[in-house]
Amino acid sequence: MSAGLDSTGGRRQPRLHMRAAVMRDRKLIVADVPTPEPWPGEVLVRTLACGICGSDLHALKHADKFVETSRRAGGRPMDLTRDVVMGHEFCVEIVEHGPRTTRALRPGTRVCSRPVLLRDTGPQTIGYSNDHPGGYGELMWLTESLLLPVPEELSTEAAALTEPMAVGLHAVQKAWLLPDDSPLVIGCGPVGLAVIAALRLLDVRPIVAADFSPRRRELAVALGADVVVDPAKTTPWESWRDAAAVWREPSRAPQASPWLPGPPLRPAVVFECVGVPGVLDQIMAAAPRGSRIVVVGVCMEADAIHPMLGIMKELNLQFVLGYTQDEFAATLAHIAAGRIPTAPLITGRVGIDGIAKAFDELASPERHAKILVV
Amino acid sequence: MSAGLDSTGGRRQPRLHMRAAVMRDRKLIVADVPTPEPWPGEVLVRTLACGICGSDLHALKHADKFVETSRRAGGRPMDLTRDVVMGHEFCVEIVEHGPRTTRALRPGTRVCSRPVLLRDTGPQTIGYSNDHPGGYGELMWLTESLLLPVPEELSTEAAALTEPMAVGLHAVQKAWLLPDDSPLVIGCGPVGLAVIAALRLLDVRPIVAADFSPRRRELAVALGADVVVDPAKTTPWESWRDAAAVWREPSRAPQASPWLPGPPLRPAVVFECVGVPGVLDQIMAAAPRGSRIVVVGVCMEADAIHPMLGIMKELNLQFVLGYTQDEFAATLAHIAAGRIPTAPLITGRVGIDGIAKAFDELASPERHAKILVV
Repeated sequence: MSAGLDSTGGRRQPRLHMRAAVMRDRKLIVADVPTPEPWPGEVLVRTLACGICGSDLHALKHADKFVETSRRAGGRPMDLTRDVVMGHEFCVEIVEHGPRTTRALRPGTRVCSRPVLLRDTGPQTIGYSNDHPGGYGELMWLTESLLLPVPEELSTEAAALTEPMAVGLHAVQKAWLLPDDSPLVIGCGPVGLAVIAALRLLDVRPIVAADFSPRRRELAVALGADVVVDPAKTTPWESWRDAAAVWREPSRAPQASPWLPGPPLRPAVVFECVGVPGVLDQIMAAAPRGSRIVVVGVCMEADAIHPMLGIMKELNLQFVLGYTQDEFAATLAHIAAGRIPTAPLITGRVGIDGIAKAFDELASPERHAKILVV
Repeated sequence: MSAGLDSTGGRRQPRLHMRAAVMRDRKLIVADVPTPEPWPGEVLVRTLACGICGSDLHALKHADKFVETSRRAGGRPMDLTRDVVMGHEFCVEIVEHGPRTTRALRPGTRVCSRPVLLRDTGPQTIGYSNDHPGGYGELMWLTESLLLPVPEELSTEAAALTEPMAVGLHAVQKAWLLPDDSPLVIGCGPVGLAVIAALRLLDVRPIVAADFSPRRRELAVALGADVVVDPAKTTPWESWRDAAAVWREPSRAPQASPWLPGPPLRPAVVFECVGVPGVLDQIMAAAPRGSRIVVVGVCMEADAIHPMLGIMKELNLQFVLGYTQDEFAATLAHIAAGRIPTAPLITGRVGIDGIAKAFDELASPERHAKILVV
């Protein structure tokens, strides 16, 4: 912080500046940038810890596609000629209250929040916006009514994992799971691990998970996977079939009948957590009839699928994004209660100056799961 | 028929031959072909009327892709080096009963059936098989337990529309419609028209339907569409928004709120009835958040989508195929009761010799909806 505040909630002079990792000209640099003015109902917070998300890596690498697709979807994408301060997985502490706030939480209180500002002009995204800096800067404004205080006994770092873990909980909620559904998680990066944690939390088992990386398979087990598969050695579907067939009481399995197509199988619910072109079509080709595919991994490029595969097997594709406020709050509570393990996930810590290097390191699945900016 | 039958249900000598339109070397020709031997529980029938389906046109035009995708999906596709007698939209009359049949329906009875044989080796497709000829031949064997007698007062031609109309009923069933859902039908060929008829039957309105062809838009109105759109002039979504907003009691509409994204809209359920590459991605780009897209049109080629469009709006894609026995029987009953109009759909009649020419004519949406082989 390079300037003091007028804490009356009125106009501030001089304007507040801060250090931040900034996306400028499609590169990540460290710069001194202004913090914007608050709107009514907003609270100034200081970043204590902020996770680096795979979507940030994608957004930097595929910046133009990201913007173009956002525009096609009817969104208001960021302007790449202007600065963007990314970072949307944060645990912060309250610095001061802006105008028209209740001030129910005192300055110094640690809080988490969905990365969104609720304004009377509509919701504003934090972390992919030219106007609303995210957690890769020292300071930001948040909507007071969305703040969730972090329990005393919970570490700041674990609390910063609320956002990515909430993505998993939401994906599993949107899968509309039925008692006999048998999950398969494709990809065990942070998104896949969050899905595994949520499946375990809801006791949807056996959880079969696939990833080429041995380190990520270890993490999948730590987060609750029952069976892990190296797709280079076995097809995940073979392991899924075995696990889905043996786990539940055999008496509940439908009897094989020559009059019905194929062997009796529990319905597959596949979580696509890779987000790379080609994976969706592979899953559609391999999935049994009637499978539901929950698309959680964010593929920012065009992707070729064969619709006829979907038609022949009456597949369902549910694309998912984010979480509700309830899911976000529930995730924080689950983490605080130790029902979602977070310790294995944090594999590195950097300062603002180290973010660009961390982006490079995260490309290697063997070294890192989640790197926190602290 | 070039030979008599041994009607005892035992071995027949000499083997039965018939005239048929045959797919041979990726072309449609008329030839004299043998009818296969019956399995237990099967009934020999004579084709009275058989509709030409868009999928048959696709299967002929994209034969290799059709076979390759079927194989990738785990199916047992037809062998293109051998003859295939297509035709799966038929009304037939019983000629004689094969071994182990109940003979509950007398020879001469008009019947409809799903185009499938239930055998103890598993279900066998009729119409895309080297072994099980379809309705483009004079004779075929059907599974007795699937036969549905056609009511006396119903014309053979209307009964032959049971299969394509059942596709619409099934698609609408699989859309899991909720009371406030507002449908949009993209494409008013036979598949789109069947969906419109089913939506009208279930009173899911207003029904907005889009097609570039004036003739098809007329047919859409005849089948029950409330609003038809020429996408060359207006975007279908604009018409959908207007129709979806005004139709129901305004008091039930949620109030606009600046805190929520976008204007309040009833959920969109879009029926993709075109089946041409690029359409799915266009729908995904234009659909409002949370839309469900039911993919009924059969695209046999690879198709590029932008998964990020689906993710940003949490879209759901439900691919659908065929119908259940109950849906098939219900459709026949609805047609017989006059609840599904069929007269406007039949725009041409040909004999077996005219099928190849009819395939060419069906490429023009202005001239034809459904051509029957009689």
